[in-house]
Amino acid sequence: MGASHEGFETRVRDSFGRQTFMRTLGATLEEVGEGRTTIRLRRDRAFGQQHGYLHAGALIAVLDSACGYAALSVAAPGSEVLTAELKVNLLAPAAGAAVIARGRVVRAGRTLVVCQGNAHDADDPSKHLATMLATMVVVPAP
Amino acid sequence: MGASHEGFETRVRDSFGRQTFMRTLGATLEEVGEGRTTIRLRRDRAFGQQHGYLHAGALIAVLDSACGYAALSVAAPGSEVLTAELKVNLLAPAAGAAVIARGRVVRAGRTLVVCQGNAHDADDPSKHLATMLATMVVVPAP
Amino acid sequence: MGASHEGFETRVRDSFGRQTFMRTLGATLEEVGEGRTTIRLRRDRAFGQQHGYLHAGALIAVLDSACGYAALSVAAPGSEVLTAELKVNLLAPAAGAAVIARGRVVRAGRTLVVCQGNAHDADDPSKHLATMLATMVVVPAP
Amino acid sequence: MGASHEGFETRVRDSFGRQTFMRTLGATLEEVGEGRTTIRLRRDRAFGQQHGYLHAGALIAVLDSACGYAALSVAAPGSEVLTAELKVNLLAPAAGAAVIARGRVVRAGRTLVVCQGNAHDADDPSKHLATMLATMVVVPAP
Repeated sequence: MGASHEGFETRVRDSFGRQTFMRTLGATLEEVGEGRTTIRLRRDRAFGQQHGYLHAGALIAVLDSACGYAALSVAAPGSEVLTAELKVNLLAPAAGAAVIARGRVVRAGRTLVVCQGNAHDADDPSKHLATMLATMVVVPAP
Repeated sequence: MGASHEGFETRVRDSFGRQTFMRTLGATLEEVGEGRTTIRLRRDRAFGQQHGYLHAGALIAVLDSACGYAALSVAAPGSEVLTAELKVNLLAPAAGAAVIARGRVVRAGRTLVVCQGNAHDADDPSKHLATMLATMVVVPAP
Repeated sequence: MGASHEGFETRVRDSFGRQTFMRTLGATLEEVGEGRTTIRLRRDRAFGQQHGYLHAGALIAVLDSACGYAALSVAAPGSEVLTAELKVNLLAPAAGAAVIARGRVVRAGRTLVVCQGNAHDADDPSKHLATMLATMVVVPAP
Repeated sequence: MGASHEGFETRVRDSFGRQTFMRTLGATLEEVGEGRTTIRLRRDRAFGQQHGYLHAGALIAVLDSACGYAALSVAAPGSEVLTAELKVNLLAPAAGAAVIARGRVVRAGRTLVVCQGNAHDADDPSKHLATMLATMVVVPAP
């Protein structure tokens, strides 16, 4: 694992650490690969929809971050990544103790990075909870 | 405002009240019309992305709820509404003190209800923050 | 209507004229405004789905062009517009003699232009057939 | 290959054969598996956008059909499948002689079937042209 890898992993972990919303959700950044990240989110009672399952908004938040950081991991140093748009299909209620959200880059252009995200039950990977297709835009860091 | 109106408004407000995630976000259900709802979300430091703006996930959560409750307001009594999928374009960072998310029904079928959502800065309605297009599915209440 | 208007209308009409697919479909560019266009598509037997209604692909093609040209109408001279992504909800089968597809700009940024498209039955505007939300990317003309 | 397989393949091929738009485009149904289909589309001059590449609308049409027939292949006999909505990211211009569009079922529910579609250059599979995420609705055949 060379200097380049450390470079992007550090950038991703630093930015993730500044997202107070991820902290509020108790989401943890599990893995950071080149073009791939994994985030874990425990299902807390405070993040429920009307039946106590995880609110789609909480699930989408971690999928969005997983996709955004997958994109950031392949972006040029000195740039950052914003979500231009995302689309998500919710496949099953998130009723387990935790979810795993994975983001990966489908295609990285200079300006636009297209990412796919998938969420599964953390204890039963056969339970596919949601699938996302998102467009990230690369901008110079402020 | 007759019995029917009270009917749907009560159903919507009861369900919203059970969404612990809305409470955690401090989101408030401002208006409930037939096929339309408005939710207000204060920008709290706890819901930030890496630059302190409101995290897209928090904004999408309230837009999703605004669309879902717009759909529920026109669904047959005894049914409820789940988000099948949504797509959102993020137009500008949510940097103000609060956002207003509006959901409205575009077309209500027996099974599928298509909704549009829009979020604006609460203090400057000329700031269009996000626009959503979502598909809700009507199911019998459990 | 001054030089600037003629400028964008000419650019849009020239580009539309080069889209052989629009000609093959028999689609006509009805109106070109600043940030708005209207395309008309006759329902031909040759463009059917399995029940003889207009194939979603044909409807989406004209909605995509309507959105793309709405974006081009507000883009800087010397640039052109490509579709980065689009999402469309099909609301009702296109069973009439013709459809009207309208595109309009929701937000024009320097690089990304977000557009909305809507298709209605040409003879019965109360029949809403489809609604689209699309992201166009502005690039220098080749 | 048993009766059940013949069953769904026949249903899919019959329906595809009735889509006059696929015939007009010269699209051919290459493979039909359980939950998977492949369609081939030659790039004809008549289906171009302003630079002569394949118009997004033509590409989306075959991706939509590939996804729809993937869904139909797993739907109960006596039912049929309509596209409720689709979202597609266009990744690269379709500049080759032909494209291959693949659709596959991500999750099949009783009412909704979520599908993924991907299009590649027919001669260079490393060229990923487009990726789609679509929601199909299962209805009783008329």
